[in-house]
Amino acid sequence: MTRDLRICFIGDSFVQGVGDPEYLGWVGRVLQRTPGEVTAFNLGIRRETSEDVLRRCRPEILPRTKPDADNRLVISFGSNDMVEEDGALRVDPARCLENLAAVLDESRRLAVSALVVGPPPVVDAGEDHLSRTRELAGEMASLCLRGDVPFIAVTEELARDSTWTTEATANDGAHPRAGGYRRMADLVLAGHWHEWLALP
Amino acid sequence: MTRDLRICFIGDSFVQGVGDPEYLGWVGRVLQRTPGEVTAFNLGIRRETSEDVLRRCRPEILPRTKPDADNRLVISFGSNDMVEEDGALRVDPARCLENLAAVLDESRRLAVSALVVGPPPVVDAGEDHLSRTRELAGEMASLCLRGDVPFIAVTEELARDSTWTTEATANDGAHPRAGGYRRMADLVLAGHWHEWLALP
Repeated sequence: MTRDLRICFIGDSFVQGVGDPEYLGWVGRVLQRTPGEVTAFNLGIRRETSEDVLRRCRPEILPRTKPDADNRLVISFGSNDMVEEDGALRVDPARCLENLAAVLDESRRLAVSALVVGPPPVVDAGEDHLSRTRELAGEMASLCLRGDVPFIAVTEELARDSTWTTEATANDGAHPRAGGYRRMADLVLAGHWHEWLALP
Repeated sequence: MTRDLRICFIGDSFVQGVGDPEYLGWVGRVLQRTPGEVTAFNLGIRRETSEDVLRRCRPEILPRTKPDADNRLVISFGSNDMVEEDGALRVDPARCLENLAAVLDESRRLAVSALVVGPPPVVDAGEDHLSRTRELAGEMASLCLRGDVPFIAVTEELARDSTWTTEATANDGAHPRAGGYRRMADLVLAGHWHEWLALP
């Protein structure tokens, strides 16, 4: 029970918990329901794509790990990559997958055990965005499987979740309130969360 | 009400909220009681001194600000500087004040409005540590006054607060649980918090 567990959560606005009036997001809610004490770092930044996350991954994780601690990294991005701007995707799916592979390589170099959470849907971005995000999530899952990294799917589940979609629609079209983040935390906790943390 | 308010909180384990089973710390509790929506970034890292914070201040704040947003920075460190290790202070008080001045200079260069929260007491570090921290806090307050930066004192108040001291003692000797962080949030909210946010 004296294990020094340190978890960095890196990604976009959903990681950050934008829109949650309780300022917990799914990350805070997952931590509250994780047994034992966790030293947690929320490195979510709104609007960021996989490119942005890759760039700051190493410099931001380094000061938050300790050689003798159980250092972990949770990665979640992709929804912003799949957004169309000026007639092109912000980041191409193939490139987004390369970036994910690069972040996972970095975590191996830093001896930090990684877990990936899929990209949440952006409710007001339309059907095409949802199809692209869904497909990207499937490819992320395959990539993680090949690399023996746990992947937790949330895209489809949240797109069909009435709490998530209702709250996001009533808010800014993308970010839910407390209820939606609670649902996302449920998915993460019901995924490989506890098994992953139990791994040495 | 459409102001894009972004606040970075940079500092040590107290900023991070270490020990709080609700994973809010004083930062989360202050945000919950701040009207309107805030995009908040918690950049606390346990064990860090003013030296460490100064080093990562610019690179970590840059990607979290936006030119058209109302960008803010809350700084809190010093308790770790005043800890004696191998017969010497981790960071000398004069040096700690230079570091604070340098962080404030950086915030001006980045056009980010700053506020400083004083260093909380470390209950099990003894009377000498408390005197040094108390004195440091006083010098921080003067430095802030000269620079027209709001400063919120918490050292003395928390050292005399039975919730803070009881929880910290029962925990790891330094970090309280939810109750102590609630007390610290009360002090911040009763300080210059709302006036500072109301400033253009």
